[in-house]
Amino acid sequence: MENRFKRLQSEFQVSYRYEVFFTKHLFALENLVLRNFFGLQEQKGSKKKVLVVVDDGILLHQKHFRESIQSYFESNVTSVQLVKNILTIPGGENSKNKNEFWELVSSGISEYGIDRHSYVMAIGGGAFLDMVGFATAVSHRGIRLLRVPTTVLSQNDSGVGVKNSINYFGKKNFLGTFAPPIAVFNDSSFLISLDDRDWRSGIAEAVKVSLIKEESFFRWIELNVNSLVNRNIDVMEQLVFDCARLHMEHIRSGDPFEFGSSRPLDFGHWFAHKLEYLSNFSIRHGEAVAVGIALDSIYSFLCGDLKESEYLRILRLLLGLGFTLNFPILLEKGKENLEIALEEFREHLGGKLTLLMLDEIGKPKEVYSMDISILMSAFDTLVNFR
Amino acid sequence: MENRFKRLQSEFQVSYRYEVFFTKHLFALENLVLRNFFGLQEQKGSKKKVLVVVDDGILLHQKHFRESIQSYFESNVTSVQLVKNILTIPGGENSKNKNEFWELVSSGISEYGIDRHSYVMAIGGGAFLDMVGFATAVSHRGIRLLRVPTTVLSQNDSGVGVKNSINYFGKKNFLGTFAPPIAVFNDSSFLISLDDRDWRSGIAEAVKVSLIKEESFFRWIELNVNSLVNRNIDVMEQLVFDCARLHMEHIRSGDPFEFGSSRPLDFGHWFAHKLEYLSNFSIRHGEAVAVGIALDSIYSFLCGDLKESEYLRILRLLLGLGFTLNFPILLEKGKENLEIALEEFREHLGGKLTLLMLDEIGKPKEVYSMDISILMSAFDTLVNFR
Repeated sequence: MENRFKRLQSEFQVSYRYEVFFTKHLFALENLVLRNFFGLQEQKGSKKKVLVVVDDGILLHQKHFRESIQSYFESNVTSVQLVKNILTIPGGENSKNKNEFWELVSSGISEYGIDRHSYVMAIGGGAFLDMVGFATAVSHRGIRLLRVPTTVLSQNDSGVGVKNSINYFGKKNFLGTFAPPIAVFNDSSFLISLDDRDWRSGIAEAVKVSLIKEESFFRWIELNVNSLVNRNIDVMEQLVFDCARLHMEHIRSGDPFEFGSSRPLDFGHWFAHKLEYLSNFSIRHGEAVAVGIALDSIYSFLCGDLKESEYLRILRLLLGLGFTLNFPILLEKGKENLEIALEEFREHLGGKLTLLMLDEIGKPKEVYSMDISILMSAFDTLVNFR
Repeated sequence: MENRFKRLQSEFQVSYRYEVFFTKHLFALENLVLRNFFGLQEQKGSKKKVLVVVDDGILLHQKHFRESIQSYFESNVTSVQLVKNILTIPGGENSKNKNEFWELVSSGISEYGIDRHSYVMAIGGGAFLDMVGFATAVSHRGIRLLRVPTTVLSQNDSGVGVKNSINYFGKKNFLGTFAPPIAVFNDSSFLISLDDRDWRSGIAEAVKVSLIKEESFFRWIELNVNSLVNRNIDVMEQLVFDCARLHMEHIRSGDPFEFGSSRPLDFGHWFAHKLEYLSNFSIRHGEAVAVGIALDSIYSFLCGDLKESEYLRILRLLLGLGFTLNFPILLEKGKENLEIALEEFREHLGGKLTLLMLDEIGKPKEVYSMDISILMSAFDTLVNFR
């Protein structure tokens, strides 16, 4: 009987560490980044395996990509053993929609005997990395993941973060885990073959993070608009580096696995998610984020927080970068979906609604509700902005 | 170009904390354990939900179990909102074999709007808790899990641990995550209706943990053999408490998410897994663990580490508790599967083989290989033991 109200308590910390390498031509024989990385990982007594999984979109631009990976490992890497069969799986959002894709990764892990001390190397865009990351995180309760993001958006944002996901029950990112990678390899040579929309789309996250983290980075983007529009790769490398740096600083110093209510990196995202959905994902994530940033900046101005000159700078920068702020679907269905979008975002986060708005460029503030009539005005200003 | 070898590093800790409550008749109206727990969890500004998922085996013994849960919440709990529809799902190993079962939990989470700050309460045996835990850990990247284990084995071992899993590609526990619960409620009244095999089976983990952690607990079990065989519930409560305590101490002080090679709680398990499989799971986990413990104790003796008197105490205790050490399938297929079992265990753990053997009762030692001829002799001693 004396057991009736006995209790035990457990409390512990789990440590995570990962590195993000910035390089060019990761699989060129003279590039030693991967060789050195694996050299440091070597452990006596057992040879680890590496299963490589490639987004098939890459093969459109680099027909012999798999062969170059095989040559690299053959020539440069003795400390781990490459699984001969390099898996190729379709990328893009659709790779997150069906079990068959993540199951291909997990069945590769099963079939080739990839254990918890071996590696899966995922090479592809953000959605593809989400999907491979999910399969990798749940197989054997977590295989070591190496990410090689191939788009601006994945190199500066999701690819250096700690999440993975697939879509389920028709809901975006319904299944997923928090699972940091072991390392990320950002290879800028992949960015050269991106189409203009993907090149531009990734810049939205850099604008976002500059607005909530670092005014000097915002000014740097303003100064480099033309170079970015003209696809200067050196400038893009710098943008990716600084955006990744701020993103990682935020994760490290905050609540990495989001146990609390706030998700302060999601500035401009509550409406972006809805807009992507309304467009049936024909509007890309970064394009929708640009609209979301614009809307929340106008709202911050109309609430009396952000100066007029500053919200105008933000909108002009977005237009200067080539973003569209008045998509037809936005004009047609945007306004009636504002409140719905807000509620869906609250549900997705869980807990009470917590959003970021701007006091100044580089200085965010948390808010816990939005004034719907001010929001409607902000929307009108947005779609009529020239 | 100067970016070529730039790199960033991220390093952070994630903190976990959970409590295990020991009680009787958790849903009796006068039992305040759950009421007090939810009272402390209350957060201003939002009312959390609780989705309860019940192992249908419980309804065989308690026909009105769901109604008593509903009454309890109605009368006692104002700080959270119970989802009216209590889900009932088959328990046992089969609940981990098909997508349809974990999907029932996840679709409940989706349908009833359970967010990351709301709760899933899983009530059932170990396999059932593994399955619900998996669904809960991957939905919205992790819903808060409350476990109510209903068997000896789940109350003293898996239910107070940090893992979940389902079977996939025909492999046991192939998919899963490390995800500590928020709280565990060990209600001894569930143990009364267990059949003798399940009652006994759970005791094997207590013998195991005593052998590798605490000699005084081993002696306590020896002293209480008759009470345990005669199903004295007070003695069983004490056994469950001490086994859970040692298990949790181990997780907390070791490598909770098993990033390293060793898994020092797995004493006696390398062969137990194979034996379960060979018997097509007609031999229960604890019954197989008892055989595994016996085998490794004899091996430790034959290696010159464990004294003869000590290995004899261990085998006599297991027989005294009613465990069988010479199953027909063991005689028929055991010996030829020893080496295979060892290799499969290494693969499952990943990295190099790491096993525990015994120097003394309560004093384990790590070994990194086994001598096959000594192992064969140990097997012969085992199956001929009287």
